Amino acid sequence: MSATAIPVAVEPTRDEHLVAAVESAGGRVVDLAEARVLVWIGAVDDFPDLHDRIVWVALKTAGIEEYVSAGVIDDRRVWTNASGFYAENVAEHALGLLLAGLRQINTAVLRHWDKQPIDTAVRSLHGSTVAIIGAGGIAASLIPRLTACGARAIAVNRSGRPVEGAALTVPSARTDEVWAQTDHVVLAAPATAETRHLINASSLSALPSHAWIVNVARGPLVDQAALLDALRNGEIAGAALDVTDPEPPADDDPMWSLPNVIITPHVANPASGLTRAMAPWMAENLRRYQAGEELLAVVRPGRDY
Amino acid sequence: MSATAIPVAVEPTRDEHLVAAVESAGGRVVDLAEARVLVWIGAVDDFPDLHDRIVWVALKTAGIEEYVSAGVIDDRRVWTNASGFYAENVAEHALGLLLAGLRQINTAVLRHWDKQPIDTAVRSLHGSTVAIIGAGGIAASLIPRLTACGARAIAVNRSGRPVEGAALTVPSARTDEVWAQTDHVVLAAPATAETRHLINASSLSALPSHAWIVNVARGPLVDQAALLDALRNGEIAGAALDVTDPEPPADDDPMWSLPNVIITPHVANPASGLTRAMAPWMAENLRRYQAGEELLAVVRPGRDY
Repeated sequence: MSATAIPVAVEPTRDEHLVAAVESAGGRVVDLAEARVLVWIGAVDDFPDLHDRIVWVALKTAGIEEYVSAGVIDDRRVWTNASGFYAENVAEHALGLLLAGLRQINTAVLRHWDKQPIDTAVRSLHGSTVAIIGAGGIAASLIPRLTACGARAIAVNRSGRPVEGAALTVPSARTDEVWAQTDHVVLAAPATAETRHLINASSLSALPSHAWIVNVARGPLVDQAALLDALRNGEIAGAALDVTDPEPPADDDPMWSLPNVIITPHVANPASGLTRAMAPWMAENLRRYQAGEELLAVVRPGRDY
Repeated sequence: MSATAIPVAVEPTRDEHLVAAVESAGGRVVDLAEARVLVWIGAVDDFPDLHDRIVWVALKTAGIEEYVSAGVIDDRRVWTNASGFYAENVAEHALGLLLAGLRQINTAVLRHWDKQPIDTAVRSLHGSTVAIIGAGGIAASLIPRLTACGARAIAVNRSGRPVEGAALTVPSARTDEVWAQTDHVVLAAPATAETRHLINASSLSALPSHAWIVNVARGPLVDQAALLDALRNGEIAGAALDVTDPEPPADDDPMWSLPNVIITPHVANPASGLTRAMAPWMAENLRRYQAGEELLAVVRPGRDY
C-alpha cells in the first residue's frame, strides 16, 4: 500500500473479498469522500451522490437497465458493469439448460423410468447447430463449450463482425434469416426496445420442430403467450428458461405444467457467494485501470447495457 | 460393387441404414452363409451359429458382458463392439447430468421458483476438478468437453499411462487416492469384478461434501445402499445416474424421493435412431478392414469389455 495507491471505496459495506481484491491489485480502501473509484455492491435505490473526483464506478450487476431508469449513470466518469465476470457462469447455465432439455433430464425427473418415450425424445447436441442471439461476453464463453460438444455456433450481433469460433456471424438486422438455419437458440442479448419479443409467433414458426430455446438473458425477449402456443402445438420441442416475463411466473401460469418446459429461478448467475467469486475479476479490472489498459465491461453511454 | 467387394451379412434384419453404410464402404450385403463379415444388430439370444469363413463380427452393443456370459464370443475371429460410436453420446449425457445437478435443474423442475435454496445450492463446473473412472473412449470424448467448461480432469485407467487432455492420470490400482483430490466423479468403467462397488461407504466418505457422482457406466459400480446413506447424510451433494442396481429401481426405491438424485432411464445412448446414427461409424470400420488398418473397438479376448 504505497502513497500513490489508488483510493477505492467499497460500498455500502466493506465486503471482505472485494477489500482483499482491491488491496491485492495495489488499491487502498477508503471512505467515499476520499475515493477516486467506487465499487458499488448495494441496491440501485441506495446509490449515493457522487463527487466529481470519482472517475470510475464499478457496478456488480450485469444488466444495468435499473441504473439507467433511475438516472444514476452519467457521462462524467467511466462506469463498468460485471457482465464479463458473469459470462462464464451464465454460459455454463445455458449449456446445462440446453443439455437438460435435449437429454430429457426434466422429463426423467418427473416421470420415473418412463423409458420408451424418453429414449425416443432424447436428442444429441453433437452434430447440431446453435444460434446465439446477442453475441457478447456470454457467447464468447459459450461458443468454445458448444464447439467442444460437437455443435456448430451461429452468432448474431449488431455489427455482423465475425465472432471468434462461430461458424457464421449474422448482423442482428438479419436475425430472421437465422431461425430456419439453426437447430436450437440461446438468447443472450440485453433487454432493449429492439430485442423485445424477438421470439414471437413468426420466429417460433420458422424454427424447426426439434428446436429448444434457452433464455439466460431477460424475460421480455420472448413473447411468452406465443411461446406457450408453440410449445402446446409442437412447433418447437421445448424451452429452458432462467428468466421469464412476468418474473417469476404466476403460480397458475400454464408454463409450469407443460412437459417440455424447464424453468430455473434466475440463478444462472447465483447471488450466493457472489463477492467471493467476483473478487479476482475486480482485482484484474483495477490492475488494468492502474496500468492504463482498457477496462473490462465498460458501459457505453446511450446504450442501456 | 465389384467382384472383390467384401461380402457382409446384416442380421437379423437388413436395416436400411447399415446396408447403405456397408455399400458406401465398398461392401456387398449377402446372406450369412456367404458372408465373411457379420453385422449383428439383434439380441444375444438370437445370435446365430457361425461358420468358419466369418472373420469379423461387428456387434452393436457397447458393453458385451451378455455375449461373454452366453459364450458367444470366441477366439477364432475378430469381434468388435460399438463403444467408440457410443462414446460421444454417452460423454454428452454425462456432461448433461453433471451440469443438471450442479445447476440444480432437477430441483427447479420439482420446486417451482424456490429461489433462495436453489440459488444457494447452485455450483459451477468452471474451476472444479472431475475424476473420470475408467478412462477409455467416453473419457476421450468427455475430457475436451470438461476442459472447455473450465474444469480440470483426473483420468483413472488400468495402466496409468497419461491420458490426453487430463491434468493427471492415475492407475486404477490407486483409485482410492483420487477421492479426496476431486470435486466430482464420472463413472465410465466397464462392469467387472474389479469395478464392482467401486463407489462404496469408504469412497463416499472420502469425497468432499459438495461432490456429485455421475454414473453412465453400469449400475453395479455403485453400492447403492451406501450411496443412499451418503445422500441422506449429506456426505456428498448428489448423484446423477443413467444406470442403477437393480435396473430399473423398484417403484418404492427410496432413491426416487431424494431431492439430490437424478435418474435417467438408461438413455445415455438412446436405442431410437440407433442404426441411422451408427451407420457412418460402421462404414468407417469396414473401410478400415478393407484397407488393412486397425479396427475401431476390437474386443480383447479374456477381458469382458
